[in-house]
Amino acid sequence: MTALNPAADLVDLTRALVDTPSESGDEADLADAVESALRACPHLRVQRIGSSVVARTDSGRAERVIIGGHLDTVPTAGNLPSRLDGELLYGLGACDMKGGLAVALRLAATLTAPVRDVTYVFYECEEVSGDRNGLNRIAAECPDLLKADLAILMEPSGASVEAGCQGVLNADITVRGERAHTARSWMGVNAAHRAAAVLQRLDDHTAERILIDGLEYREGLNAVAVRAGIADNVVPDTCVITVNLRFAPSRSAEQAETYLRGLFREYEIEVTEVVPGALPGLGQGPVASLVEALGATPRPKLGWTDVARFAALGTPALNYGPGDPALAHTAGEYVSIGQLRECEARLQAWLSG
Amino acid sequence: MTALNPAADLVDLTRALVDTPSESGDEADLADAVESALRACPHLRVQRIGSSVVARTDSGRAERVIIGGHLDTVPTAGNLPSRLDGELLYGLGACDMKGGLAVALRLAATLTAPVRDVTYVFYECEEVSGDRNGLNRIAAECPDLLKADLAILMEPSGASVEAGCQGVLNADITVRGERAHTARSWMGVNAAHRAAAVLQRLDDHTAERILIDGLEYREGLNAVAVRAGIADNVVPDTCVITVNLRFAPSRSAEQAETYLRGLFREYEIEVTEVVPGALPGLGQGPVASLVEALGATPRPKLGWTDVARFAALGTPALNYGPGDPALAHTAGEYVSIGQLRECEARLQAWLSG
Repeated sequence: MTALNPAADLVDLTRALVDTPSESGDEADLADAVESALRACPHLRVQRIGSSVVARTDSGRAERVIIGGHLDTVPTAGNLPSRLDGELLYGLGACDMKGGLAVALRLAATLTAPVRDVTYVFYECEEVSGDRNGLNRIAAECPDLLKADLAILMEPSGASVEAGCQGVLNADITVRGERAHTARSWMGVNAAHRAAAVLQRLDDHTAERILIDGLEYREGLNAVAVRAGIADNVVPDTCVITVNLRFAPSRSAEQAETYLRGLFREYEIEVTEVVPGALPGLGQGPVASLVEALGATPRPKLGWTDVARFAALGTPALNYGPGDPALAHTAGEYVSIGQLRECEARLQAWLSG
Repeated sequence: MTALNPAADLVDLTRALVDTPSESGDEADLADAVESALRACPHLRVQRIGSSVVARTDSGRAERVIIGGHLDTVPTAGNLPSRLDGELLYGLGACDMKGGLAVALRLAATLTAPVRDVTYVFYECEEVSGDRNGLNRIAAECPDLLKADLAILMEPSGASVEAGCQGVLNADITVRGERAHTARSWMGVNAAHRAAAVLQRLDDHTAERILIDGLEYREGLNAVAVRAGIADNVVPDTCVITVNLRFAPSRSAEQAETYLRGLFREYEIEVTEVVPGALPGLGQGPVASLVEALGATPRPKLGWTDVARFAALGTPALNYGPGDPALAHTAGEYVSIGQLRECEARLQAWLSG
């Protein structure tokens, strides 16, 4: 088993994490190493749930903070082992998110008496379909572990605070026609031709920009798939357009659905998935204090992240971690040593009072 | 082996043909039976090519006529064995085209000294992809067998003359955009949205109606497939629209392609298949004589049929046979006894002088 030493240098620890492969579904080795390192700390209570590991301080503080990150990475892209080039550490997951994990592990091992109690959550299967996500299993088996006054997800955010997240709605819009042989196409009605109106409406649509706590959530509405076709000699009687709506966290799932249906009132719509976003909650006590301590101007998170899972449990959450989010899932991903050290120092200071 | 008796009653012969299954690729039994029946006729010279059978009179007449039909049917649809209900004979292939085959077999066996020499062509694999079509193999191995002053394909045409046929062109129109994450869709260009213009142009397009020899060939231009989609969170950078053009036989394959490219000048177009049609040739000697003898007002053939293969070999060709073409490939297909007898009588009269 890989041995991790969280008390060692932060860069060495990040390299050791990168060099322990943990593609989604195959995180057990890394979880073993993390569990073992944390069990060596007398100030932590450790629980293992699948390939997720939860460690808590329990000093009776007035506030409790979750610091979380996923153990898994996307599949390798020929970018192992890790490689240090000056200020930049390259390798699979360096950015998303073994840099953030290293910071969290260091804090867990070294902060023996933080001024806020901390629950460290290292979880499995974030990079795959949501039903496999380790947070789901923890929420189902030990929901109390995910309750806190604030959760910090150490996803790459360029060491600035990305607050809240947008919701996602996927739906199929079905345009119907009437089938016919193409040699006598006037006997039918071409559903693909009629779909022009739906696609044009999407093209004409101006997505809204919604201001919440001073942050601009820019929505988006896109056709992400179009499917029509029976055979080369048949006028298609069906054309299905899959649309993806990214909606501001001020809309509920129900409101997002009503909004979409209002835009395409005359069409058949089937909503196949809808997950609400998370409000930034910048006005709430612990969030305001943290944002001030981190010294970064919060930005709105436009994608969907696991902060929404915490929001759904009633725990305000934000993204804060080292690494440029645009590098996530790229073969050339890296994390800068400066951001690693900055994230550790700022969180350490805030948790030390 | 099934024994066929072409000298017997026409209805009995049609039933025997229907009751000898001959799905495409599995015509050998039927070809054996047809070959055996024709070899019993001393006035015919018979050749077997794969599962196709060609039989010729050779009396040194001034004109030669081909009478052709395919032996194969589409797969069974629970419509075997044959069933006679008053004037209607039901069963797989009754309409397409064992009724026509029965007429041709009767003519071959009974007309021992026609006033025009006749080449009877019973061929395999018409209902499947063109490269398997029995006429191709005959044209490759014995091209002279397909030369004549006129070819009559006994495909179901409701006992009226369907003249010429339209050409077919399939092409892919590719619309391009720029890929992006849907959470930041304004960073990309949605190819599916841009495809609205192509689909709208297809919807607005008025197909031409082209008059040839007094027959109206009504063209058609349709999207028969639309494909776009990478993932639910990705703005698609490509949308491919497959279009199917049915064009009048007065246009060559090249002219049809130029026509399509002219309509979509600003787009990437890849022509995947183009086959020209066949001119009706109503003004040509033997066609005019036949049309008069058949006593039917010719109609334009809007679909593509094997008459185009004969036209490509320089042999004018038309469709004339028993059975409603709209019933072809349906489980309830049938042929009316009246049309069977009418087709036999008219062709017999014309070939007897």
